[in-house]
Amino acid sequence: MPLICTGTIGIDSVYTPHGHAEKVLGGSCTYFAAAASFFGPVRLVAAVGGDFDQQYRDVFRAFPNIDTTGMEVRTGSKTFAWGGRYAANMDSRETLFTELGVLKEHPPAIPEAYRDSEYIFLANTHPGVQFDLLQHFPRRRLAVADTMDLWIKSARHDLVQLLKKIDGLVLNHDEAEQFTGKRNPVTAARAIREEHGLKFVVLKKGENGALIVHSDGMAMLPAFPAETVNDPTGAGDAFAGGMMGYLAQQGAASKLKNPASFEALQQAMAHGTIMASFNIESFSLNRLQTLKKGEIENRYREFSRMVRVV
Amino acid sequence: MPLICTGTIGIDSVYTPHGHAEKVLGGSCTYFAAAASFFGPVRLVAAVGGDFDQQYRDVFRAFPNIDTTGMEVRTGSKTFAWGGRYAANMDSRETLFTELGVLKEHPPAIPEAYRDSEYIFLANTHPGVQFDLLQHFPRRRLAVADTMDLWIKSARHDLVQLLKKIDGLVLNHDEAEQFTGKRNPVTAARAIREEHGLKFVVLKKGENGALIVHSDGMAMLPAFPAETVNDPTGAGDAFAGGMMGYLAQQGAASKLKNPASFEALQQAMAHGTIMASFNIESFSLNRLQTLKKGEIENRYREFSRMVRVV
Repeated sequence: MPLICTGTIGIDSVYTPHGHAEKVLGGSCTYFAAAASFFGPVRLVAAVGGDFDQQYRDVFRAFPNIDTTGMEVRTGSKTFAWGGRYAANMDSRETLFTELGVLKEHPPAIPEAYRDSEYIFLANTHPGVQFDLLQHFPRRRLAVADTMDLWIKSARHDLVQLLKKIDGLVLNHDEAEQFTGKRNPVTAARAIREEHGLKFVVLKKGENGALIVHSDGMAMLPAFPAETVNDPTGAGDAFAGGMMGYLAQQGAASKLKNPASFEALQQAMAHGTIMASFNIESFSLNRLQTLKKGEIENRYREFSRMVRVV
Repeated sequence: MPLICTGTIGIDSVYTPHGHAEKVLGGSCTYFAAAASFFGPVRLVAAVGGDFDQQYRDVFRAFPNIDTTGMEVRTGSKTFAWGGRYAANMDSRETLFTELGVLKEHPPAIPEAYRDSEYIFLANTHPGVQFDLLQHFPRRRLAVADTMDLWIKSARHDLVQLLKKIDGLVLNHDEAEQFTGKRNPVTAARAIREEHGLKFVVLKKGENGALIVHSDGMAMLPAFPAETVNDPTGAGDAFAGGMMGYLAQQGAASKLKNPASFEALQQAMAHGTIMASFNIESFSLNRLQTLKKGEIENRYREFSRMVRVV
């Protein structure tokens, strides 16, 4: 059940109250793929520039399940670069700079060998681009997209067109409010799902967890109660990676007749929660690079006990 | 296993984006007792003034499990009155007025018949008063207190003395941060528990749920995903009432050898969550007045499915 992620690879400079990291590997696709790779193979489609040095490639090499064939190198261009600073309580962040680089150019090409991808995650980028990328996967069984405030504001029409073609949308609570004008997270998620004919909407609330409004039910989970939070960057992408990675794994094991059933999504969300909780412990991919499967399983069991309601 | 609550009975005037209610029954003890009464008998200790009309007494009469023998009427005084207005998103509220009335006077007397109380909840009031009230219950098996920012700031010494005598503390996330200087909810709750030798600390996060740090483990729950939120007043007290009511009920059924075990508290928190979710649907006690046991059981089962992680 090949899983693929389209999105960005970036070079991040991040400042938090606990330290900083300059010119480190980042990007939505990167975090997604790293988290998903613990559950099985994951393909990656993104463009980088001539400045994408060996040090960044070495990070990807630490994740043998990531297939980087789809990483398009444009020697004459620059890799997308982003700088951000988190507030004292980590609740908010300010963008210090954004250098679009390759993102100003055409979308990356999708290798012919990737056309058989079945689990598709369209990480955050212009919804028109996400729409075009999606057409390359005729055998898709489950297509999920992320989006952001910028596109809700500036490319709403394209976003609405995209929603008609996918199964699920993942977005932040604030973005859902912006999209619908409704503050209540359940009401907002339900409105998006029903108005656009989606199977499900996953609403991320950061340190306050996540909820899913699905055609067959509703579920929500707190975040894992992490005490070590050094860099929240990529938490949402790692969450989505854990979620989709788990679904693809279950699909591969033939355990899932319906890859987007409520029960599957609910457990997938819990796996996403665990992956995000590891990711925020350290800057860039530092924590995921050293993470062991046993650690994931232990924390998952711990989490399961913590939210037990009998 | 008699359960008792000491605290306030108030006359509230509440304004929310969904409407308003003037001079309606409120107060920490009131909300606590109403929620707890669905699980078994609950005693109430609080003072009211000569202005405590029949209309308010009639509300109590709708809850046959509430024993109001301990309600002390002071005809020459005024009942505690509070007015508040909630912000558009209900996340915050401003106090419009506070008329202390009987709260300026001595604490209410505790009826001799109440001395055998075993489950004690000291709802929010001056910690010195809470300390004194506690001495009247020599047969206590479980004593839990609530507190607030005002006492953390102005009566910290008294609060610390109180903590030495009780098993558990219930407080809001912001208050825990104020108490400890630590923003992370787990770190803050753990610091309070360990520094003051408590069995457990329950940290309330409003619409974002609650967590417990207990000597034997940690648990957290999201809030029930309510779409009907008309008045958040009393949600924290209804939460505590559901929690303590459940524990007293389990104790009475002889199911609990240790009334403050981690497992018991974890399930108690879930029952508190459900009671709070009903309470916020309407102003004052309006929703709890018409609530049926079957509705509680149905929502509890629904909630249990929603947070299922296997």
